[in-house]
Amino acid sequence: MSAINRQFRLAARPVGLPKRSDFNLVEDPVPVPGDGEFVVRNAYISLDPAMRGWMNEGKSYVPPVGLGEVMRAYAAGEVVASKHEKFPIGSHVAGVFGVQEYALSNGKGAHLADAKLAPLPVYLSALGMTGMTAYFGLLDVGAAQAGDSVVVSAAAGAVGSLVGQIAKIKGCRVVGIAGGADKCRMLLDDYGFDAAIDYKHDDVKDALKKHCPQGINVYFDNVGGDILDAALSQLALHARVVICGAISQYNSTSGVKGPANYLALLVCRARMQGMVVFDYASRYGEAARDLGIWLAQGKLKSREDIVEGFDTFPETLLKLFRGENMGKLILKV
Amino acid sequence: MSAINRQFRLAARPVGLPKRSDFNLVEDPVPVPGDGEFVVRNAYISLDPAMRGWMNEGKSYVPPVGLGEVMRAYAAGEVVASKHEKFPIGSHVAGVFGVQEYALSNGKGAHLADAKLAPLPVYLSALGMTGMTAYFGLLDVGAAQAGDSVVVSAAAGAVGSLVGQIAKIKGCRVVGIAGGADKCRMLLDDYGFDAAIDYKHDDVKDALKKHCPQGINVYFDNVGGDILDAALSQLALHARVVICGAISQYNSTSGVKGPANYLALLVCRARMQGMVVFDYASRYGEAARDLGIWLAQGKLKSREDIVEGFDTFPETLLKLFRGENMGKLILKV
Repeated sequence: MSAINRQFRLAARPVGLPKRSDFNLVEDPVPVPGDGEFVVRNAYISLDPAMRGWMNEGKSYVPPVGLGEVMRAYAAGEVVASKHEKFPIGSHVAGVFGVQEYALSNGKGAHLADAKLAPLPVYLSALGMTGMTAYFGLLDVGAAQAGDSVVVSAAAGAVGSLVGQIAKIKGCRVVGIAGGADKCRMLLDDYGFDAAIDYKHDDVKDALKKHCPQGINVYFDNVGGDILDAALSQLALHARVVICGAISQYNSTSGVKGPANYLALLVCRARMQGMVVFDYASRYGEAARDLGIWLAQGKLKSREDIVEGFDTFPETLLKLFRGENMGKLILKV
Repeated sequence: MSAINRQFRLAARPVGLPKRSDFNLVEDPVPVPGDGEFVVRNAYISLDPAMRGWMNEGKSYVPPVGLGEVMRAYAAGEVVASKHEKFPIGSHVAGVFGVQEYALSNGKGAHLADAKLAPLPVYLSALGMTGMTAYFGLLDVGAAQAGDSVVVSAAAGAVGSLVGQIAKIKGCRVVGIAGGADKCRMLLDDYGFDAAIDYKHDDVKDALKKHCPQGINVYFDNVGGDILDAALSQLALHARVVICGAISQYNSTSGVKGPANYLALLVCRARMQGMVVFDYASRYGEAARDLGIWLAQGKLKSREDIVEGFDTFPETLLKLFRGENMGKLILKV
């Protein structure tokens, strides 16, 4: 075990897009576990749009990362030192381990990852928080039913690609919105979506009208902004709008753009509801079972976009906000 | 029976606030009922913010009023000619009878009003669509429970004043938002609200923080705009936002202002849901029974702001948009 633990610590609260100078890359001693603790060597670090929100000051669904603290992140790796019965040396584990090479954990929020069932990165993707978010957001908050027209934004992204595939498995008609011809082709060819809308090329509102002539029953939103407004303009009666994220707004320095078409909720007696995956912690097993079966059956594809190099963290993170990732963005340590 | 039926017909689609020239005051012969029809002489005409939306072109929850058609309105009056068994001459009746002195009806959507139980205007207010909207919006869409902090905007208006009173009856803590000291005094003294916020004088966001320190469980919105945004900033976990109307936006000529704080829905796992009272038609009896009992017990006050003079319709309607009415605005024919 190296005696050095490299960590990205938050140095400043970003204004707009995060930049390298918003972090300090520091070297800390590798921690030593006390009783009931273990140390994991991170192999893969999950990069998520939500991380941008965690860098901001102010009340949210989790406390912000403090200045000087290790940047919060999901990660997966191998236990290299342990005084915790459930997590022996050599076991694989996933949890909120931060943007660092080694993490000390008491096991809270951590779970074992069976590397024989699926490669470790999948435990940050379809079998991790990403999969849980897609599963409960679509089926619980969105209450998607067979026959529904489901539209998802950031559809080639980590959550979006799973939402669309789960909706297909459940018998819905699925339309994905993504940026660029390559992503749209992937939605149709790899994920089996019924239609794809390239927001960089198509008029999203017109395309939604064309692809959802009876209106949208479930709109799963990851982006906010103009695309949310376009979807609102095409809701069906009693539609459900799932607010999972708003990546188009996270780096705005001029405030969030509210959905001007929100009165469609009244016209369509529709609901717009926010979700945070932690609320479903007691039901993760249920989702993991279904997702695992679908993966094993080949009905669900988990695609990871893995970038090597721990040092590249600040720049790699930006791929999310530039829409450069295909599937789940993961940093390989 | 006068041989002349005066009617306000929509002459032009208003831009911004409606004006007299957007209507034609025409004289038509009083209609004669055929089999299964009756004629009502309107005594009271309900003036509602929703009427502004009905004047606009485009898809909504009801078709727009066509140019040249009698302006749509709820009204109550007396049957003066009838070939309809259920609605004999002399009976009192309420329904969508339009801004005119006499209306022909086949009974669809009309219901008898027992003038012995309540004065006729109350059938346009607490016992009419106004009461149904408040009842189902608060209890069904808002799912208000005893102990909840309920906030309502346009709280001195027709729907708002009922929402607050019903919430009090149900054991909620009620905060009303209204414009001006007189209205706020009325909320506290006449309707028994726990707190009143004068949006023309107070900082609404600060006041909500003060009056709802644990957050807002149910926000019943009649206004949209900045007040909706202020309420979103103070939601409690799992809050319900009922979108009943958006009077601050109806006459906007620069587009609707979307709620910039809508991501509070995510942070608070809250839902925002639109409602249209027609959806509850099969349950009107349930609401009318409760509302009638509360009125009889003196627990609920139905306040009508009655303006005399059929001819004043275009100008009287504007009282709604200027916030000049106290309680339900009604035009006496």
